[in-house]
Amino acid sequence: MDEREVFVIGAGMTPFGRHEGRGVEEIGAEAARAALVDAGIDASGVEIAFCGHVLQGITAGQRALSRTGIAGAPVVNVENACASGSTAFHQAVAAVRGGAAQIALALGLEKMERGPIPVDPSDVRMTPRRGAPLMPGMFAEIFRAHSRRYGTTIEQLAMVSVKNRDHAAENPRAQYRERITIEDVLRSRVVADPLTLLMCCPTGSGAAAAVVASADVARGRRRPITVAASVLRSDPPGDASDPLQMIVGINTDAIRRAYAQAGIGPDDLDVIELHDCFAIAEIMHYENLGLCPRGEGGKFVEAGLSRIGGDVAVSTSGGLLSKGHPLGATGVAQVVEIVEQLRGESGARQVTNARTALTHCQGFGGAAAVHVFTA
Amino acid sequence: MDEREVFVIGAGMTPFGRHEGRGVEEIGAEAARAALVDAGIDASGVEIAFCGHVLQGITAGQRALSRTGIAGAPVVNVENACASGSTAFHQAVAAVRGGAAQIALALGLEKMERGPIPVDPSDVRMTPRRGAPLMPGMFAEIFRAHSRRYGTTIEQLAMVSVKNRDHAAENPRAQYRERITIEDVLRSRVVADPLTLLMCCPTGSGAAAAVVASADVARGRRRPITVAASVLRSDPPGDASDPLQMIVGINTDAIRRAYAQAGIGPDDLDVIELHDCFAIAEIMHYENLGLCPRGEGGKFVEAGLSRIGGDVAVSTSGGLLSKGHPLGATGVAQVVEIVEQLRGESGARQVTNARTALTHCQGFGGAAAVHVFTA
Repeated sequence: MDEREVFVIGAGMTPFGRHEGRGVEEIGAEAARAALVDAGIDASGVEIAFCGHVLQGITAGQRALSRTGIAGAPVVNVENACASGSTAFHQAVAAVRGGAAQIALALGLEKMERGPIPVDPSDVRMTPRRGAPLMPGMFAEIFRAHSRRYGTTIEQLAMVSVKNRDHAAENPRAQYRERITIEDVLRSRVVADPLTLLMCCPTGSGAAAAVVASADVARGRRRPITVAASVLRSDPPGDASDPLQMIVGINTDAIRRAYAQAGIGPDDLDVIELHDCFAIAEIMHYENLGLCPRGEGGKFVEAGLSRIGGDVAVSTSGGLLSKGHPLGATGVAQVVEIVEQLRGESGARQVTNARTALTHCQGFGGAAAVHVFTA
Repeated sequence: MDEREVFVIGAGMTPFGRHEGRGVEEIGAEAARAALVDAGIDASGVEIAFCGHVLQGITAGQRALSRTGIAGAPVVNVENACASGSTAFHQAVAAVRGGAAQIALALGLEKMERGPIPVDPSDVRMTPRRGAPLMPGMFAEIFRAHSRRYGTTIEQLAMVSVKNRDHAAENPRAQYRERITIEDVLRSRVVADPLTLLMCCPTGSGAAAAVVASADVARGRRRPITVAASVLRSDPPGDASDPLQMIVGINTDAIRRAYAQAGIGPDDLDVIELHDCFAIAEIMHYENLGLCPRGEGGKFVEAGLSRIGGDVAVSTSGGLLSKGHPLGATGVAQVVEIVEQLRGESGARQVTNARTALTHCQGFGGAAAVHVFTA
C-alpha cells in the first residue's frame, strides 16, 4: 500500500426513485450513514465533507449531515451541473491526497420533481429546435450529427437502453427495473424527435455517499479500493458550431489525463459507469474512452461488447438511463457501484474478475470528471 | 520563504453596488481579470478555480471565467451561505497547499435584487418574531440577549455603523460612502425592532478574486502575502436555545484553530475584516476574537479601539455594513482588502505598519471561515 495513495473505504446509497414525502436532508443522511457503517467509521471521524447537489438550496450538505452526527468538521457544498457529485468526490480525494484530512466524506443528493430538468436556456451553448425540451432537443441534434457522419442508427440507441435496463433488472436500487425490448424503446413516446422517452434518462431523487481515506486509515480495513486517478476538467476551447464537439472535447481531455494518471489504457478496464444521460451519449463515450474507434460506438453496443459478460461491462448499475439520475447524487452513486463491483459484492450483476474500473460524469456548462479505481 | 507556505500573489474586485444592467458573468470576469493582472499571471496559468456564490444558478463560475481565457482547468462552484466566498478561498489555499496546483484562483460573485435576502425559513434554527424579516429579526433577538446579559446599548450598535461608514468614506469601492452620525443611525427606519436600517448590511452586487500560489511561483513577485492560517468549520454541537451561542460557538472554534495554525494571538493583529452583517455581530466578534473580554465588545467600539488608528483596525474596507455584502463576493473581497493593507496600498485608510491581519466570515446554516495573513 503506497503511502501517497487514496482509498475508498466505505460506500452507500439510497434507492433511486421518487422518495415521495421525504426531505432531501433525510435522504442524504440515509446515504451518509450507510457509507459510514460500511466503512466502520464513526461520524466524528470525518474531518471534511463535500456535498454535491444542483437544486437543493442553501447549505443542503449541512442540513443532511447534521443528522448523522458530523459536527464541527467543515462541510463544503459544491455544484458543477450533472457532475456535482463527481466534483464532491474529486474534492474529497484531493483533501486526503493533499494531506488536509485522513478521512473525507463525499455526499451527493438531489430531490427532483417530475418533468424536464429546470435548465436556464442562457446557460447552454445550443439552441433547442422543433419545440423539444432543452436537453433532449440538444441530444437529438447530437444524434443526427453522429448518424450523418458515422451511420449510427436509432436501433443502436435502443440497444443501449435495452442493455442498461437488463443490468438495472439485477440492481435493487435502480429506479426502473422491468426489462424492455428494442421495440418497446422505439415505440415509447417521442420526447425530442427522433429520441423517445426510453432513450432519455428519467428525473428522480436519491443520495449516495463514499468515505475516502489515506493509506494509514485504510490499512487493515475490509477491501479498500484504490483511487488510481481523479481528474476534473472544464471545457477546453472547441468549435461550438460542431454539436459532436460538446460531447467529445471536454471528455477526451479528462479521459486522457485519467489514463495517464492511473497508468492504464482502455484495454485494462473491466467495469465502467459513464454519463449515459441519453443513449447517444453512451455510444459517444465508448468512442471517447477509446473502447472502439471514433464512429463505431453504435456497432460496439450492437455486438454486445458493452454488456456484462462482454469485452467491458458498461453501466452495470443500469446507468443514468435505468438506475436514474438525481443530478447531484449520480457521480457518487457511480462510485458506490464500482466499489461493490471491485469488492465482488454485486450479486447477479457481478462482473467476473473485476480489477480495474472507471467512472465518468459530464456536467454541461461545463465539467467532466473521470476517476479510475483498482481492487 | 518556506516551501510549504501558500501566498496570495494577486487580488482584485469590482466596486460593490447595484451594477444595474450588468450580468453576474461580466462582473465576475472583471474581478478575475483584475486579480490576474495584479498577479502578473496569464489566465492560462490558472490550474484550478473555485467560485463562491449563493444565488447565481448552475455553473456560474464557468460562465464568468470562460470570459477570462481560463479554459480546460477545472472550475468548482462552492456554496456555504454567506461564507461562500471564504470557502472558495479556503479551497484554493487547500489546492495549493496540498500540491494539486501551483496557482489557484478564488472568485466570489453575486448579483442581488433589492430587499431582504431570500432565506428559506426552514434553513435556520430561530423563529423570527414581531413580523420582522428573518435575518434582521434573528439579530434583533441576539442583540436583546447580549444587552440583557452584558448591558450592550443601542448607541454602541450605532457606533459600529458610524465607524465602518467612516472607513468606507475612504474606500472608492464601497457601496455607501457618505459619513453618518450616531443620530443618523438611530433615526433611520426600524427594520427589526430595535435594529434600524443603518445597523443592517445592505444587499448589493459585486465580485472579488484572489490568485493563490505556491512558494515556487510567489518567489520574486511583487509583495506576496503569506496565508498563515486557513480554517473552515461547521457548527459544533451547541445549545440552540441560547441565541448568543449561534454567534459564539462556530466562530470561536474556527478562530481558536486559526490562531494555533498561525502561531499568533489577538494581540498580534493589526487589521481585521470580520462578518459585520449586523452591528451586533461586529461587537460579538470582537469578543470571539479575544480583542476584549466576553461582554465588553460594546465598550470596545465606544472607546474607539477598533478604528483605524486604534488598538486594531476592524473593517477598514467599511465592512459588510458599508462596503456592502454581495453574498458570495464578501469572503474574497475581505482578502482583497487585507492584501492591499499588508502591501501598504490602502491610501487614505492605510493602517500604519500593518503586518498581521485576519479575515472572518460566518455563513448561517452553517460555516465559519477564518484566515490569517502576514506581510
